[in-house]
Parts: sequence; structure tokens; C-alpha cells
Amino acid sequence: MQNLGLSKLKMERGALYETIVTTVNEDGSGNAAPIGVLCRNEKEITLYLYEGSHTLNNILREGKFAVNILDDPCIFALSTFTDLKLNYFKKYKEYVVLKDADAFFTNVVYKTRKINKKDPLGKSTLYLVNAKVKEIIMKNCIKPLNRATYAIIESLIYSSRFKIADKKTRERYIERIKEMKKLVKKVGTKKDKEVMKYIMQQVTRF
Amino acid sequence: MQNLGLSKLKMERGALYETIVTTVNEDGSGNAAPIGVLCRNEKEITLYLYEGSHTLNNILREGKFAVNILDDPCIFALSTFTDLKLNYFKKYKEYVVLKDADAFFTNVVYKTRKINKKDPLGKSTLYLVNAKVKEIIMKNCIKPLNRATYAIIESLIYSSRFKIADKKTRERYIERIKEMKKLVKKVGTKKDKEVMKYIMQQVTRF
Repeated sequence: MQNLGLSKLKMERGALYETIVTTVNEDGSGNAAPIGVLCRNEKEITLYLYEGSHTLNNILREGKFAVNILDDPCIFALSTFTDLKLNYFKKYKEYVVLKDADAFFTNVVYKTRKINKKDPLGKSTLYLVNAKVKEIIMKNCIKPLNRATYAIIESLIYSSRFKIADKKTRERYIERIKEMKKLVKKVGTKKDKEVMKYIMQQVTRF
Repeated sequence: MQNLGLSKLKMERGALYETIVTTVNEDGSGNAAPIGVLCRNEKEITLYLYEGSHTLNNILREGKFAVNILDDPCIFALSTFTDLKLNYFKKYKEYVVLKDADAFFTNVVYKTRKINKKDPLGKSTLYLVNAKVKEIIMKNCIKPLNRATYAIIESLIYSSRFKIADKKTRERYIERIKEMKKLVKKVGTKKDKEVMKYIMQQVTRF
């Protein structure tokens, strides 16, 4: 049997997880940003990074980064809006990682690709960063965040109110569930997608 | 130090968790329904149940029930729309529980209260069921579902798109974040609520 990789962290192939990516700045200090990480297989991941971010610049320069698994919404919020203070980081070999992560893994980039994206918000340049997982360090026992689980929970909460809702409210709920389905299609496991399909079938029977 | 209760399951006072409540039907078989469980303190919980549900009838008759902690969206979906098949359940003492739960705890009701609720969807009768936790059984290592964590993640995802969004899109994002804030107010821990407040401050600066 092949050596286990990301499934040790309960990460499944094809699903996108909410994590915090840490990189080393030019001056050697740590940088942290909330990034969705696509699990490609046991040993490979892909990041989608917008042009101009510190994370992207550091990754392109250093060729490596760490992925931190945690579910403290506070650290997600802080690293979205601010630069995390020094005392959030610690060194691990040639990487920086978050002190309070439940687990982290180190990665070496093997391919980057620039793509131009067009969506309702306008044009943007995106980098696909493919990397190989080097080492996985687990501290606490964990389940990494996956929005699909919650998109399903939210859809179910809407569904359970269907029977007591009027026509207009139902239409609003259906709209929301459709959005959730889109999200699950984007971030969920194969099983999650099947569950979402099932939910859609159930609610459109009304 | 007092004996630990629900904090063993990482459940915090004042937060509402997505769980599956299992009860015994009149014929002795098992019944399962997805129910939000409010953690009051280490040893006490409250359920909010709509009149007419099997779960409520079973709880009022038997005076006891089990709370199952799991994060398999599939079981949440099935128990929302159908009666779970026999092979999902197992007996535990005088309770029934879910075979695949990561953890469960048994409860004895000590107070019920009937209240009339009025919301945009109309009038409904609700039962508040207060219960004492009797025994906690942990199987896997777990973090129980809390929608607040994900409402925060969703809000952060909207926030991070602010800079590249036009005025109209921003207004739509603000609306969504406000909804998320409401949700966090309802289901989150004290810390979650502080994080949400911080997010609102950040996005309304634009």
C-alpha cells in the first residue's frame, strides 16, 4: 500500500479546503493569507492566486510554502485584513508556519501557470500554482474546514422550512439552494455533490 | 475542578450546534432528526422543537433522548427528508443512537415549555425542551459543526472580493454579510460574534 499523504488530514481528492498559507517574505519574516487549497491527490495540491499578492510573490521567489490547517475564525479574519504579528509564526526548517495550527504541511512548487480570467466582476490575472507535499505535521486531531459541508447544512435548513413557506419565500429559498449547489460543485467531494443533487430533487418536488 | 461535560466535545456555552437527535418511537424503533442543540453549560442543553414532530412526541412521552455528533452531510440530508433505515441505529442502554456518530450523549428532560412564535412565515407553536446531560460517549476525535465558523468564512470570502467589486456588487455583499452576522449572533460563540463585528467594521470602511 502506498504511503499515506493528505488523507491523513482527512483531505479528499478534488475538494477545496479553507486554509492559511504561510510564506517567507524577502526580509525573512512570515506572511499569512487565507487561501483555498485544492487537493489533487495524496501528494499534490493546487493554489489559485491573484496577481500582486504577497503570497504569490513569495511563492514565485522561494518556490515553497506551508499550508496550515486550523478552524479558528479569528485567525482567518485577522489574516484577511491585516498582517499577522510576529508572535503568530514559528520557524519550521526552511519554512514559517502558524504556531496555533492544528496541523500543517510543507510544499515545493513544481509548476506555475498564468491565466486570464473574466467574470462578472471584470478581468483578472490568476496564477495556478502546483506543488508537491513534502512533510505533514499533525498536532491536534482535526477535520479541515470544507465549505461544502456547511453549504449542505444551509440548504437543508432552507429545505426544512419549505413546508411552512409561501410561494415567494420558496422561490427565494430555491435561489439560495442553487447558489449552495454551485458552491458545492466548486469545493465539495463527489459524495457532497451527490447529496446536493438529492436535495435539489427533494425541494423541486414541492 | 468540576467534572468536564460538553467541553469534552468542544461545545461551548451559548453556541448552537448542528446535531442529529435520536429518540425511541412508540414501537421501540429509532427516530432521527437534524436538530440544533443549544449548549447552556457543561451539563445542560436546550432544544427548540416545532409542534407535531415525531422527535417532540417521543421526547414528551419518554422524557429522554440522545444527541449525536457527526459531520456527514449525507446523514443530515437523509434524516431531513426520510426516516432513516433500521441499520443506521443501534441500542445504547435505554436509548437509540446512530451507529456512525463520532460521539453521542444521552439526556434526561427536566423542563418543557410551550411558546407561540410569530415570524414572517406565520404563527407556529414551539416547545423549549431543557435537558440534563447524563453520559458522553466519544468515538472518533471530533469538532462538532457550528454554522458560525462557516458564516464567518463566507463573510470573509465576500470581504476579500470587495476591492475588485463595483458599487452594486458591494451592496449585495454587504447584504449577505449582514445575514451572516445575524446567523452568527444566533449560533456563534462570544468570540465568533466579536469576529463578525470586526468584519462588519472592516467592510463598511470602503
